[in-house]
Amino acid sequence: MKKDTAIILLHAQDHDGIVPAVTEFVLNNQGKIKKLDQHVIEDEKRIFMRIEWLLTNFAIPQEKIGEFFNTLIAERFQMKWSLHIRNKKTRVALFVSKYAHCFHDILSRYESKEWDIDIPIIISNHEKFRYVAERYDIPYHCFPITKENKKSQEAQELALLKEYQIDLVVMARYMQILTNHFIDQYPNQIINIHHSSLPAFAGADPYGSAFRRGVKFMGATAHYATEDLDEGPIIVQDVIPISHRDSIADMKRKGKDIEKQVLAQAVWAHLNYNVLTYKNKTVVFQ
Amino acid sequence: MKKDTAIILLHAQDHDGIVPAVTEFVLNNQGKIKKLDQHVIEDEKRIFMRIEWLLTNFAIPQEKIGEFFNTLIAERFQMKWSLHIRNKKTRVALFVSKYAHCFHDILSRYESKEWDIDIPIIISNHEKFRYVAERYDIPYHCFPITKENKKSQEAQELALLKEYQIDLVVMARYMQILTNHFIDQYPNQIINIHHSSLPAFAGADPYGSAFRRGVKFMGATAHYATEDLDEGPIIVQDVIPISHRDSIADMKRKGKDIEKQVLAQAVWAHLNYNVLTYKNKTVVFQ
Amino acid sequence: MKKDTAIILLHAQDHDGIVPAVTEFVLNNQGKIKKLDQHVIEDEKRIFMRIEWLLTNFAIPQEKIGEFFNTLIAERFQMKWSLHIRNKKTRVALFVSKYAHCFHDILSRYESKEWDIDIPIIISNHEKFRYVAERYDIPYHCFPITKENKKSQEAQELALLKEYQIDLVVMARYMQILTNHFIDQYPNQIINIHHSSLPAFAGADPYGSAFRRGVKFMGATAHYATEDLDEGPIIVQDVIPISHRDSIADMKRKGKDIEKQVLAQAVWAHLNYNVLTYKNKTVVFQ
Amino acid sequence: MKKDTAIILLHAQDHDGIVPAVTEFVLNNQGKIKKLDQHVIEDEKRIFMRIEWLLTNFAIPQEKIGEFFNTLIAERFQMKWSLHIRNKKTRVALFVSKYAHCFHDILSRYESKEWDIDIPIIISNHEKFRYVAERYDIPYHCFPITKENKKSQEAQELALLKEYQIDLVVMARYMQILTNHFIDQYPNQIINIHHSSLPAFAGADPYGSAFRRGVKFMGATAHYATEDLDEGPIIVQDVIPISHRDSIADMKRKGKDIEKQVLAQAVWAHLNYNVLTYKNKTVVFQ
Repeated sequence: MKKDTAIILLHAQDHDGIVPAVTEFVLNNQGKIKKLDQHVIEDEKRIFMRIEWLLTNFAIPQEKIGEFFNTLIAERFQMKWSLHIRNKKTRVALFVSKYAHCFHDILSRYESKEWDIDIPIIISNHEKFRYVAERYDIPYHCFPITKENKKSQEAQELALLKEYQIDLVVMARYMQILTNHFIDQYPNQIINIHHSSLPAFAGADPYGSAFRRGVKFMGATAHYATEDLDEGPIIVQDVIPISHRDSIADMKRKGKDIEKQVLAQAVWAHLNYNVLTYKNKTVVFQ
Repeated sequence: MKKDTAIILLHAQDHDGIVPAVTEFVLNNQGKIKKLDQHVIEDEKRIFMRIEWLLTNFAIPQEKIGEFFNTLIAERFQMKWSLHIRNKKTRVALFVSKYAHCFHDILSRYESKEWDIDIPIIISNHEKFRYVAERYDIPYHCFPITKENKKSQEAQELALLKEYQIDLVVMARYMQILTNHFIDQYPNQIINIHHSSLPAFAGADPYGSAFRRGVKFMGATAHYATEDLDEGPIIVQDVIPISHRDSIADMKRKGKDIEKQVLAQAVWAHLNYNVLTYKNKTVVFQ
Repeated sequence: MKKDTAIILLHAQDHDGIVPAVTEFVLNNQGKIKKLDQHVIEDEKRIFMRIEWLLTNFAIPQEKIGEFFNTLIAERFQMKWSLHIRNKKTRVALFVSKYAHCFHDILSRYESKEWDIDIPIIISNHEKFRYVAERYDIPYHCFPITKENKKSQEAQELALLKEYQIDLVVMARYMQILTNHFIDQYPNQIINIHHSSLPAFAGADPYGSAFRRGVKFMGATAHYATEDLDEGPIIVQDVIPISHRDSIADMKRKGKDIEKQVLAQAVWAHLNYNVLTYKNKTVVFQ
Repeated sequence: MKKDTAIILLHAQDHDGIVPAVTEFVLNNQGKIKKLDQHVIEDEKRIFMRIEWLLTNFAIPQEKIGEFFNTLIAERFQMKWSLHIRNKKTRVALFVSKYAHCFHDILSRYESKEWDIDIPIIISNHEKFRYVAERYDIPYHCFPITKENKKSQEAQELALLKEYQIDLVVMARYMQILTNHFIDQYPNQIINIHHSSLPAFAGADPYGSAFRRGVKFMGATAHYATEDLDEGPIIVQDVIPISHRDSIADMKRKGKDIEKQVLAQAVWAHLNYNVLTYKNKTVVFQ
């Protein structure tokens, strides 16, 4: 059986005392360190750190860890930090429209237990995949979106996310732009996949644009959704070579594979509390 | 000893008769085909073709091949085409400023005969590398560029290119923008290297911009210089993964290696008459 | 609606007359060429060719094309060749054991019609995935294999393949070695995925071996099954970087993604009649 | 001006106390940490660590650091460790035979100061590149090798390495196998480049073997030379895709580029004290 662990992600102005202070906070309270990573970005003079430790025998009760860490360590070094307790499955809401590839890929990782998550709800703006949701016994809610009803439909979606206690929204090629109001409820908890290697070919029809420009590589980008479309912190990117022999249809076909890989890698990193955001960028611990 | 060959690069509206017509033009005149490539871009309904054949025993004299091909074949199918005779070394002018990596890389390929070219002249806007040119016994001409003297300096450069019968200009991180007047003299004969994966991060300081945007890949792009900066037909691109651990200095260091590789691959493709341009894109035959 | 096409794959000793002869065989009989590829492997002095043409209005009846091509063209140039008519879905038998990733990936490409195939039968040596097969309404046959029963179980499997008129067997991490007798019934029609970049780490436990050797890249290889295990003609390979930070568990997790990609690419190439085998190698047309 | 730093590379059985103990050894003695990396390989239950700190104001004199570290820290945790002082240029001996690409590449990185090294000597078994050495004013020693004279020639080479106080031997496609006696003098200080993605295609003629096997990727491997040929700890590998279109000559040409990149990356990692060896594998810190 897996044991509960705590994870702290933090960043602060670079200071030599941070590594020993944080490690000793854990060790002096009978925590057993599972993983420790830190890195200084010299161009920013800032240290980024991730520490994970076993909670068995940890002297501070779970619900007090944050308070103690803040008082004893974080305030001293003026850290930005977050605490995560790994003791339950992450609850993921899947958003999908009419493209199947990312949707199926995530469901198969869920079903085969490659990912230890719950998917308590699937939300779509189309009925198309209701039968797939039924196959997995996952409630499927369809909210067709128009200019007029977007606000009210999103309100219902948000109510469902609250009801189902969703931790993470994965937009598996969900072809609607979320409003700022929606996004603000889930900061750094909504992962989107864009079918180009951002910042190249942001916006609509990236494959057509790439074809017309005659580039020799195409890619996909998974990022946290922010108020600026296609501008959120990039979590994972990948690319594949293309040539004059690739038609737009070839690019779309090959793109599907890279989209699903990149989205899956980003979700995996998020599920393992490996992603820290800073200045609209990410630090992705390995 | 290598034997003379002729190469025809062509494109035309797709027509089934083109492949047999072109191959028979060669075969019926006792040409021996060395390499034949063709490809239809379906989204354009256009055929692109490259044929190379040995001139030994070819019935049409070299200086008449173009005329005969035009009359017998090209006009019939309304082709855009070019003829190249491979019987002498390509004469390359190297343009360089203050970055050494592409410059040294090209010179070492030249010296080791990896590339069978002549480099009769090196042009720079700085004196920095005169000692290197002297080492290889290559005339080095320095034309410092200011806003005021650019036109007259370019005129002198162009005169030298004519004098030395230059076939190809390679801008090995030459940090000056050429005027349209200059570029127009050498259409699809000036290869530039840009230190990003275009269209991402065109213009100045691509590594800094990539760092600030937090991308997970960086790249380099070799393209023909055109009147629109960083907008010319892309010949070769390549990319490498980066992470939050890479400083701008790391990116510059890693970038050097990818820049020199990409530029070398593009020059190699050009030297072998493998590059055909169409609609500001390239078809790069293998 | 897609129209019927014919595809000929051939190889022969290099001869200039082959390209015009084959193209004119098609054109003179009112075939419209859809795609034409040929390539000379100079180290072998051998030409490899693939031609696909529309059968609408083709003067030779489908069932006579092979005979006519043989008499008029193939015998003259002593070609090795095969003819394929693309007018129906390829019938694929999926073989699976206990690993889900390739299995789910292929089923989702089938269900989303990314691949235009039929999967009339799934064969396994375990009961594990019967529920998945039922979900897709595909008959699932389970043949547990022991040393003693292997021959008789394979005989039953072969009988099913005949009964269901299978064109292609895909071993989606099927963890049994097929006998030579089985393989001989389906030459170049059984695609296997091996979880290493062959010829490195053939045989059992490639991830463990790669970990112990300390390599910096791992990969996957899709190949046609032959009598020599892991020695068949390679269709597709791909690799990903790894580092000292990757545990064997990480390698297995990352390996799943590359295995399913590589297997899918190989099946796609085969389904499109793009793969020609020669001397235990493949030519994969694009 | 760059300031002197000390680097300790260590590994030990995993123990939570190691990170705070090592960091406090530095901090309590007024060292300023420049970079800290550690990683536990769980499959080995072993921690690997690299710490670099500024020596300005460090309380322990340089020549005593090792002794103090050993007594206070290393013995307590039964560490394997090495100490490096970064205060002078690494002295590199270049070994070369008749291939120019790695040789020129390293010299250009040296000349352009991309690498801050000294190359006090070049050793070859051929006269071919003496003129290049003269151009850089580097002594060039030629020791033709036969079966009979190998031992005595190596003795002279070793004497030169001692005389010139060589820290690192780089075999830039040096086509001779060194004896165990030679290698034993420079453990983990001789970097070799092999022109395949080891363990695939060890030994002679890897490109020919790769061509005959029909692989779809080829690569290069930089490793420390050990008594078993092509079996030493791998530092860097890289690969590139190939296809049936690539002749052996194409593979050799493309291979040159990947060989020089991989060798350069390995040397760079070594020069920066980023490479730790363990069980015939490397940990390469970034």
